[in-house]
Amino acid sequence: MRDSFHEDLDKISVQLVELTRLAGSAMARATTALLDADLHLAESVIAADEQIDTLRRELDEHSIGLLARQQPVATDLRMVVTAMRMSSDLERMGDLARHVAKVARLRYPDSAIPPVMRSTVLEMGQVAERIVAKAGSAIAGKDVETAIAIEGDDDEMDRLHRDIFTMLMNDTWKYGTEAAVDATLVGRYYERYADHAVSVARRVVYLVTGEFQTQTHTEAHLDNEEA
Amino acid sequence: MRDSFHEDLDKISVQLVELTRLAGSAMARATTALLDADLHLAESVIAADEQIDTLRRELDEHSIGLLARQQPVATDLRMVVTAMRMSSDLERMGDLARHVAKVARLRYPDSAIPPVMRSTVLEMGQVAERIVAKAGSAIAGKDVETAIAIEGDDDEMDRLHRDIFTMLMNDTWKYGTEAAVDATLVGRYYERYADHAVSVARRVVYLVTGEFQTQTHTEAHLDNEEA
Repeated sequence: MRDSFHEDLDKISVQLVELTRLAGSAMARATTALLDADLHLAESVIAADEQIDTLRRELDEHSIGLLARQQPVATDLRMVVTAMRMSSDLERMGDLARHVAKVARLRYPDSAIPPVMRSTVLEMGQVAERIVAKAGSAIAGKDVETAIAIEGDDDEMDRLHRDIFTMLMNDTWKYGTEAAVDATLVGRYYERYADHAVSVARRVVYLVTGEFQTQTHTEAHLDNEEA
Repeated sequence: MRDSFHEDLDKISVQLVELTRLAGSAMARATTALLDADLHLAESVIAADEQIDTLRRELDEHSIGLLARQQPVATDLRMVVTAMRMSSDLERMGDLARHVAKVARLRYPDSAIPPVMRSTVLEMGQVAERIVAKAGSAIAGKDVETAIAIEGDDDEMDRLHRDIFTMLMNDTWKYGTEAAVDATLVGRYYERYADHAVSVARRVVYLVTGEFQTQTHTEAHLDNEEA
């Protein structure tokens, strides 16, 4: 039989998985709203972000209550602190999905994404969905293998992000500055989204193995693209 | 005489103030490197970010040790958790300064910022310095008034960020797509930097008054600009 602490921890884990589901759904719908110039879908993503923020607050309150009540030490303490950090990453992923939806809303009835870039943005959306689904599975199953696999998806996201810059810097870019600004921001939102998912995945690995990988790998990729 | 818990908490506060100093120095130098196309200065900002990351790790380890050793509850517990959140914001501010420095490095020997935008970027750098200095003072002095004043500086940053977009969207923009992409990213880095400083300031207000303002105000501003 599980003790009370681990039952509480299981509840937090369920909330984290639910946050990955909400953050994933938000980005999936934001991508569709962006590519289809679907105002209603964009609005729904923007409105639904409050749900993510609320769940994150509940999870954090739950964690603080657990710390106060159970006074965990050593590994147990680190688990609770780590869960709170994961919730912070996941809430930020929800924000980034909302930012994508806001770009869609701003350019409605046009699509913010020019035809030449549609397939790349579609792929970024797919990678984002895949990455957050894997993060959810990794949390639910305490599954290190899936968590580590997310690094490969992040490399894919980095490649797509570089493609965006290559298109923007190409002399044949003919969609003007406004579209370039939109694409720059949207590209960065997807890339940051994946980055936070990698951070969540690394925390899963840490919780299971006790070893935390540094952010160096991801940051190195980030820097190549954005600067 | 102070008890051991509050002595530990004072040490954490000193580390937080040091983090604001490092994050402020990084952004001040990154701004100069960007405007002067100073490669060495840019490199020094990029290299110095590790110092911020290390101090943040030490602060977090210190906080976790405090939780384990002292088992604080209620307000004391929330103080330690809040300090860890502040360190996360400040570390991210260091990352954003590094990102600005990397844009400077990438475009060297040119300046990434076209003449028409120099004064705006200079002002963004000044607001960033001011805002992080105030955050440091607010932490050091448990000073709610200074913490609240940061909101006004953030409004100023938002205004400058809007100016960047106005220049980019103007039909007379003649600096090409690459400069537009750089300006979009740099503008976002400063804006996010200020956003994290506001988050730090709100946590100071929370620690002193027990009341936490939501992010709604800042996010609303953010959204106006970027989407």
